[in-house]
Amino acid sequence: MDIATPAALVDEACMMRNIARMQSRMATHGVRLRPHVKTPKCTEVARRQQAAGASGITVSTLKEAEEFFAAGFADVLYAVCIAPAKLDRVLALRRRGCALTVLVDSVVAAEAVVDRGRAEHHAFDVMIEVDTDGHRSGVKPDDAALLDIGTVLQRGGATLKGVMTHAGSSYALDTPDALRAMAEQERSGCVRAAERLRAAGLPCPEVSVGSTPTALSARHLDGVTEVRAGVYVFFDLVMVNVGVCALQDVALSVLATVIGHQPDKGWAIVDAGWMAMSRDRGTQRQKIDYGYGAVCDVNGRPLDGLVMAEANQEHGIVARRDGVADPAIAGRFPIGTQLRILPNHACATATQFPEYRVIAQGGATPTWRRFDGW
Amino acid sequence: MDIATPAALVDEACMMRNIARMQSRMATHGVRLRPHVKTPKCTEVARRQQAAGASGITVSTLKEAEEFFAAGFADVLYAVCIAPAKLDRVLALRRRGCALTVLVDSVVAAEAVVDRGRAEHHAFDVMIEVDTDGHRSGVKPDDAALLDIGTVLQRGGATLKGVMTHAGSSYALDTPDALRAMAEQERSGCVRAAERLRAAGLPCPEVSVGSTPTALSARHLDGVTEVRAGVYVFFDLVMVNVGVCALQDVALSVLATVIGHQPDKGWAIVDAGWMAMSRDRGTQRQKIDYGYGAVCDVNGRPLDGLVMAEANQEHGIVARRDGVADPAIAGRFPIGTQLRILPNHACATATQFPEYRVIAQGGATPTWRRFDGW
Repeated sequence: MDIATPAALVDEACMMRNIARMQSRMATHGVRLRPHVKTPKCTEVARRQQAAGASGITVSTLKEAEEFFAAGFADVLYAVCIAPAKLDRVLALRRRGCALTVLVDSVVAAEAVVDRGRAEHHAFDVMIEVDTDGHRSGVKPDDAALLDIGTVLQRGGATLKGVMTHAGSSYALDTPDALRAMAEQERSGCVRAAERLRAAGLPCPEVSVGSTPTALSARHLDGVTEVRAGVYVFFDLVMVNVGVCALQDVALSVLATVIGHQPDKGWAIVDAGWMAMSRDRGTQRQKIDYGYGAVCDVNGRPLDGLVMAEANQEHGIVARRDGVADPAIAGRFPIGTQLRILPNHACATATQFPEYRVIAQGGATPTWRRFDGW
Repeated sequence: MDIATPAALVDEACMMRNIARMQSRMATHGVRLRPHVKTPKCTEVARRQQAAGASGITVSTLKEAEEFFAAGFADVLYAVCIAPAKLDRVLALRRRGCALTVLVDSVVAAEAVVDRGRAEHHAFDVMIEVDTDGHRSGVKPDDAALLDIGTVLQRGGATLKGVMTHAGSSYALDTPDALRAMAEQERSGCVRAAERLRAAGLPCPEVSVGSTPTALSARHLDGVTEVRAGVYVFFDLVMVNVGVCALQDVALSVLATVIGHQPDKGWAIVDAGWMAMSRDRGTQRQKIDYGYGAVCDVNGRPLDGLVMAEANQEHGIVARRDGVADPAIAGRFPIGTQLRILPNHACATATQFPEYRVIAQGGATPTWRRFDGW
């Protein structure tokens, strides 16, 4: 492949299948899909998700909100609780026409938002984060603070748009039953929070849930209005182990070149180390530990039992996953051989690259820009 | 601090002490220092290393060679075995006046270099990588291949500049005795390789060794001409655990803002997750596991026993390292509080940021650009 290595490859046909699968699933459940763009951070990808029927985007940073708004995406949920010092940038975006919703999970943050809104004669759009699995931020569905926050926002002149939750602990599961149970826990907890707000006379039009594993596992999404998911667009080895995709669904890989061997150890050394793959070892405690990645040939065909067993900054050590030294590896992959490495965690690997090289229909390899930073 | 979070902070005074310490150590040993710029990837940092007496630079990618050459650094060692397809870019740099040395550890790669040199009527500068600790690339000092590679290069018209090694396994050590022994193993192995080449009538003017731990631990460096080290300029928690620096020597930190709490769990949640810290968990198997980083106040004073215990993409969970839930954490660090987080691995954390905010003498906070990619 005439592409300098290491490079982040995106198999477009594979990605389009992933997009269609999630969109179709959401259509079946009768809910909107608001893709989380933090995985690809690429407008070319998001445009394909919108064309397939997605509705708005979710972002993890204000930089994403700014970049995507500049590219024409105006319906944006910033799904990390707002630091009051960031309201300047939120306000600037909203005044330019971006329908940017912010998130709070405390009375203190809600007060900061309404205080700023009053001072600026501006009604911020706000959602309340609900904690349905104990893994991170949010108020518990039955916490008294939920109504306090809602009341502060409502009385303070903010627009209370609804509740949202993210069952991130679904990443640690790996059976259909456990995933279905977690999806139901996420759904019912978030719906419960919405019902409490409404019963207290507070508005709650939106009920937003989601993670890739729960989105693909839920039996029904009654009471939910929208689902957020991000990594499904590329998938990765963590998702393979969770059980919501197969190896051939992973649309992102790192193209690498063999630069040497240690034949007695059964090592081929490639020019993609952790700087290319990231330090993410997400499969370490899963069913199959893929080291720093699963090794495929240059066309993306998985090479059974071969992984990137170790990584230095710019060196990756390709070896058998079972630890057996195969001295024939040097003959099998001579210096100059290109390999594709599937990543543990697409979000972490993608961010190591400034752009994607896309394996497109017809053999073209266009470049799609991605961005990073805050 | 009036800096948007998360941000990568560099304490300039601390960095200057680290630079002076390593330079003075190399002066004592009577060897040149060729800093590895892969850690900071920043010309402002490298200029300070050069001003302190460093001689040339080491790079891990051709992008680094190109960027630093454009900034006036012409003496460059590319310390990753060359992929033959990259010789185009090497040649382009050399023809523009960059004294760029490439590395090989096999007859196959040496032949690729001399073949290309013959076709282009160009004598490449080449070093041979020697494996002194079994952790990665290189030929063993007593391997017959060493002389074969040297002969191919010499007969093929390349300029055989010498031998180099990197005892990366020193990162796994944590006692002065073990570090001194590894430094001596690295030194003696590389000198042994040089002596074998010379005894065979081959030139070997340079003997280049180094890693931050061995550079700071060697008793003597007889026979060595230059030392390479990178991470010492910032240091990090891995180096604290190795025992070659203290917490107050760590010049790089991530500035973060508290955005919420889970008081019953003793969590403060900050707006710096693994996207800011990187996924590097280098202290996981060391004496002290700092999670995703050690927590300091906004002025950089370590807060005893507090770490970033867990990280999501844009969320960091600050908690007690001993796992005890401290419900008072919400009162101690209200929403909006800024904290500094020291990184496990400076190379991995720095690459998550496009620039450094520098805490300079006199209270200024200039911005220094860094770059990434290949």
